[in-house]
Amino acid sequence: MNTTIDIQKLLSCDRRSVARAISFVENENDGAEQFLSELYKHTGKAYRIGITGPPGAGKSTLTNKLAKFYRSQDLKVGIIAVDPTSPFTGGALLGDRIRMNEVEMDEGVFIRSMASRGSLGGLSKKTREAADILDAAGFDIILFETVGVGQSELDIAGAADTTVVVLVPESGDGIQAMKAGLMEIADFFVLNKSDRPGADQAVMSIKMILGFRPHDEHSWMADVVKSTASEGVGIEKIASEIFRHQEYLKKSGEFEKRRAKQLRSRIEEIINDKFKITFWNTDRKQLLDQELLKILSRSRTPYDVAEELLKK
Amino acid sequence: MNTTIDIQKLLSCDRRSVARAISFVENENDGAEQFLSELYKHTGKAYRIGITGPPGAGKSTLTNKLAKFYRSQDLKVGIIAVDPTSPFTGGALLGDRIRMNEVEMDEGVFIRSMASRGSLGGLSKKTREAADILDAAGFDIILFETVGVGQSELDIAGAADTTVVVLVPESGDGIQAMKAGLMEIADFFVLNKSDRPGADQAVMSIKMILGFRPHDEHSWMADVVKSTASEGVGIEKIASEIFRHQEYLKKSGEFEKRRAKQLRSRIEEIINDKFKITFWNTDRKQLLDQELLKILSRSRTPYDVAEELLKK
Repeated sequence: MNTTIDIQKLLSCDRRSVARAISFVENENDGAEQFLSELYKHTGKAYRIGITGPPGAGKSTLTNKLAKFYRSQDLKVGIIAVDPTSPFTGGALLGDRIRMNEVEMDEGVFIRSMASRGSLGGLSKKTREAADILDAAGFDIILFETVGVGQSELDIAGAADTTVVVLVPESGDGIQAMKAGLMEIADFFVLNKSDRPGADQAVMSIKMILGFRPHDEHSWMADVVKSTASEGVGIEKIASEIFRHQEYLKKSGEFEKRRAKQLRSRIEEIINDKFKITFWNTDRKQLLDQELLKILSRSRTPYDVAEELLKK
Repeated sequence: MNTTIDIQKLLSCDRRSVARAISFVENENDGAEQFLSELYKHTGKAYRIGITGPPGAGKSTLTNKLAKFYRSQDLKVGIIAVDPTSPFTGGALLGDRIRMNEVEMDEGVFIRSMASRGSLGGLSKKTREAADILDAAGFDIILFETVGVGQSELDIAGAADTTVVVLVPESGDGIQAMKAGLMEIADFFVLNKSDRPGADQAVMSIKMILGFRPHDEHSWMADVVKSTASEGVGIEKIASEIFRHQEYLKKSGEFEKRRAKQLRSRIEEIINDKFKITFWNTDRKQLLDQELLKILSRSRTPYDVAEELLKK
């Protein structure tokens, strides 16, 4: 494999370079970090939007329609899908796939799905790195589509500037969403499939729960927007709510704070990854192999073996 | 808070001691590790079963019915629920809660829900530790209920001796499950709600995909069991399939191999957690704070700051 990526071509938004750069980074090839480090100064312009929610909420359709909306404003859109149930990641029925191809054919849209399985952790690190590549390449908007159930998937949603949580009337009365930790990360809610029964009650109860969040006159008030993404209904309202949130972040100084916080967790992730690689050298692996049987027979414990490995 | 837990009382399955011990460990109180280390020699007797699958597959109902079945065999059952959409964790409607109380009232069943959110990672570590406590206390069977979507939740399912993946006819043709990584961790499948249309086709297509897994005459052949858990249909068949798998593991020597593998990942987790705690001392935190603005203004990169922190 050719491990050199032409940065100039990438910066001019050459699609093949973008695709190759993401694979290069995803596979943790030698030189990937140096490449990302060089690329870093070209990043910071794209606005990052997280679209999350339970499976079946219609996140992909909504992401697709939002992408089309931004295209109509002449903005370039990168989509990163980390939802194992998303049609973007190839996990869905043929009908969905064809629907997705609407934007896939568009030169101004770049879609990339990231495997949420099989990788040795680091998924949110790789997602951010893929976003950096799209950012440097000149994509104006980056949409992360994730399923809001697992911790790591929510971490990715949390890496966005604006996080949109998509629910449907069937999601229950908002208490489910609260339990699943979605309330904490939502900048606003979309009640999708709002032509279904129970939509108004669902909106009401989400609003009620939102009212309990601590706030003062300066803080952002999360709202609920109704949509029927499959019909294109509510998409403009969602885009304008994202814009309103973006304006709020910039005026209030929250934007810098949020990016600083994301950066902090990103650096922690880089360090943890490096630690794992350097710690598990041949000596330590051998010692662990030797001691495993003793732990299984209960003559030692996982904790004292861990202690010994750390002291080595 | 009283930080001493009476180990003798715990070993005699005193419910209050069990509950307090789990909280003690979950909150990472001082001495939690020493406590777990002392407890460790009393573990290893319980059989650990993971119940996973997409939200809405009926995992909680099935877990509940399985628990009742094991109770009828006079086995004590511990349930650890880490599914944010599970009624065990309080995220569901009143009807479900009442249904759960059937087993909650039983002295031979202990139910504990673990927050999958808000904790600083380490969820699968804490889940294993809670299982150790239940194991030492004399519970014969430990059921982990997790939603099979996120990475960390799947890690927990992977920490079981036998992992059961629950699907419903609506889950699609098995390709979804494959995409989501469920195929790799399933020791067998349950097609729940099998009174619904499409059940037989779903069973057929899961079997077809299972046929593609590499195997020889000695290897375990995963099967599909049909159930309608809400009616109690198929529960005995599920229990006997779990038993058949347990027998296979013991005869083939796979049991020890599997536990050794789990132990390895557990020790890695302990070490990674300890690293994080010792690494982020005041000095390093201050350095990171100082450099954050420089990274935000693109005069430094996350990678070189990480490098500096590691060298410090």
